[in-house]
Amino acid sequence: MDAAEKILLIVLDGASDRPTYHGKTPFMDATMVHVDKLAKEGILGIMDVIAPGRPPGSDTAHLSLLGYDPCKIYTGRGPFEAAGVGIDVKPGDIAFRGNFATVRDGEVVDRRAGRIRDTHELVQAVQENLDLEAEFIFKESAGHRAAFVLRGENLSPHVTPSDPLHTGKMIEVRPTVDDAASRRTARILNEFTRKVFEILKNNTVNIDREKKGELPGNIVLLRGAGVVPHLQSFEDRWGLKSAVIAATALVIGIGKLTGMDFIPTDGATGGVDTNLTGKIENVNKALKNHDFVLLNIKGADESGHDGDFKKKATFLSRVDRALSNLEIDESMLISVTADHTTPISLREHAGDPVPLLIRGIGVRTDRQQKFDETTAALGGMNRIRGLDIMPTLIDLIGKGKKFGA
Amino acid sequence: MDAAEKILLIVLDGASDRPTYHGKTPFMDATMVHVDKLAKEGILGIMDVIAPGRPPGSDTAHLSLLGYDPCKIYTGRGPFEAAGVGIDVKPGDIAFRGNFATVRDGEVVDRRAGRIRDTHELVQAVQENLDLEAEFIFKESAGHRAAFVLRGENLSPHVTPSDPLHTGKMIEVRPTVDDAASRRTARILNEFTRKVFEILKNNTVNIDREKKGELPGNIVLLRGAGVVPHLQSFEDRWGLKSAVIAATALVIGIGKLTGMDFIPTDGATGGVDTNLTGKIENVNKALKNHDFVLLNIKGADESGHDGDFKKKATFLSRVDRALSNLEIDESMLISVTADHTTPISLREHAGDPVPLLIRGIGVRTDRQQKFDETTAALGGMNRIRGLDIMPTLIDLIGKGKKFGA
Repeated sequence: MDAAEKILLIVLDGASDRPTYHGKTPFMDATMVHVDKLAKEGILGIMDVIAPGRPPGSDTAHLSLLGYDPCKIYTGRGPFEAAGVGIDVKPGDIAFRGNFATVRDGEVVDRRAGRIRDTHELVQAVQENLDLEAEFIFKESAGHRAAFVLRGENLSPHVTPSDPLHTGKMIEVRPTVDDAASRRTARILNEFTRKVFEILKNNTVNIDREKKGELPGNIVLLRGAGVVPHLQSFEDRWGLKSAVIAATALVIGIGKLTGMDFIPTDGATGGVDTNLTGKIENVNKALKNHDFVLLNIKGADESGHDGDFKKKATFLSRVDRALSNLEIDESMLISVTADHTTPISLREHAGDPVPLLIRGIGVRTDRQQKFDETTAALGGMNRIRGLDIMPTLIDLIGKGKKFGA
Repeated sequence: MDAAEKILLIVLDGASDRPTYHGKTPFMDATMVHVDKLAKEGILGIMDVIAPGRPPGSDTAHLSLLGYDPCKIYTGRGPFEAAGVGIDVKPGDIAFRGNFATVRDGEVVDRRAGRIRDTHELVQAVQENLDLEAEFIFKESAGHRAAFVLRGENLSPHVTPSDPLHTGKMIEVRPTVDDAASRRTARILNEFTRKVFEILKNNTVNIDREKKGELPGNIVLLRGAGVVPHLQSFEDRWGLKSAVIAATALVIGIGKLTGMDFIPTDGATGGVDTNLTGKIENVNKALKNHDFVLLNIKGADESGHDGDFKKKATFLSRVDRALSNLEIDESMLISVTADHTTPISLREHAGDPVPLLIRGIGVRTDRQQKFDETTAALGGMNRIRGLDIMPTLIDLIGKGKKFGA
């Protein structure tokens, strides 16, 4: 075999970090026998997923990693969330992320309605009773989350969120651009806020919750407005039949919008309690009839946002153990990386480059033997950008597109 | 002396590779005493000649290395080939590469007319008898190759090749853009195909070839359509009087179009049998009255396309021995690199970065002592792009242009 034929891209979401605990990062602290073996057999480098010092969102990061320039196509997170929860969004739709929340006397008292879990009946009540001046789609997502889509002419993503982003006084949506479409969209969203509250305030689910001393989900706060972009399919772009294995709506949504097969995993939660074994089993299966598989594992990011070093390092050790079940053969090119750095110290995304490894036939190996941030910086790849990784992987399987003759 | 004054840029065409043979690349396998000495005395790095993972053509690669952005000026290979075979092309000309081929009953049976060698009489017959609705220039190149140029208003490079690129049915040229110039150009090229066949089919050279059981060169297939760009001269751009020493029409053409002196070498073939000693002698001479010399050595690329590891490594060892005759003095800044990677495993250009070395006064040295792909990745230059190399070299001889004050 002269080159690998298939690509497995493993994104350890938010796993990249800064040294905190005795000068170590979670990658350095974790036991990562299998990943380190890949590092030893392959080549390492560091990668600015967007640009040096620019903290990526998970959305812009994954777009970059898949070879779609977020600077050209990204207007907000809503479209990818909406696609991820199963809304059949269309280019031009205006999409939002939503939260069920609790409002009392015009004040948001809890942005997650007491972390309400089953919102199905509430969503149904809205679907059946809400009437707006534009066509819309409203759908529940995991826990307190939901997605909302406006469809039609004369709409705009240039509006402020209805979500105040912290507890306190409810706010009116305002246009951020002074044109008819933005003014109309703001008006529709304010109408949405008022009417949804009227529909939900006396819903039996909420009355029952209040009786039990739980917070009612009596309002839906929207944010992340974005236009659904027209994306070339991943297969048209790179010539590879592709699948995505992920738990979070956002990554699933990006996969769906780029025409990937989404392969669900029972027990995949997006948290540290996720079903890692199931995900790896799905990868093994998916690689039998796909040329490209994107595996996103989210738990490390959650630990980073929690500021919990031990939780993050322990989860990475678990990921490594699960990877012992990965069926590696020489037709595969494997790349392991993160979509962004989520330092324990910041509890938020940061712009540090992420470590990157590539292992497979024809890869120029280097002398590095461990997968962590500082070792990767000594690797033979040196430093590349997120948008460079797909062309690099495609080229390594012998499918690079020559420029010139 | 505070800085070097002259630059020698040695491009080992296609010499960069991927590890194949016992984990080695040809650079690692070859005996490269002299180049390794330069590596030890200088600084190493890796270079994405176009961009990471983007396989360069030899044409776009050399344009980048000389500081001309191919993304802005490159439309096809034809102009550089045509200039290389000595056609005095002018900006705006539409130029093509051509092959003498054998056609029978409307089918191309051999794209190289049995690797016909002397096409002079055939070319002359075309020159004397061909009449087209636009001004044209037709000239032979090495072996079965030729170049064709259309000149005048209302012409376009947006046409399909008349060369079917493999044996089989002849094809009509079609415009790829729907405008009058493209339609007219396609019509002229189809007229060229028909009329050239009429002129050549009963030519005595071809009748004699058929008698001897050789394939006739009875058609000329065109490809690589491009507009001759207006290129600022190398001397105007970089302030250096320059010369090119190369065997292949393409590199010679790029040199001519940028106003370099072309210094021919007897016995330079572009293959592994080339006259390396003669080329190095010419470099020694050229550096006496030029500030910049581009030396292109092509053989390693040919070996890569042949998939012949031993041939490639042996040729690189020969290049190294020939470099023992290079008269190095401290007025010279020497850079050694490749224009692209041509892996033995792929037999085609690939997008891996190429190794790069720079040696001369004032260069920040590093700890690397060997010129190969993985050692270069550890070098002090880290990773740069092809368009960065000329500004870097110019700056090292103290002629960098300050941006700002």
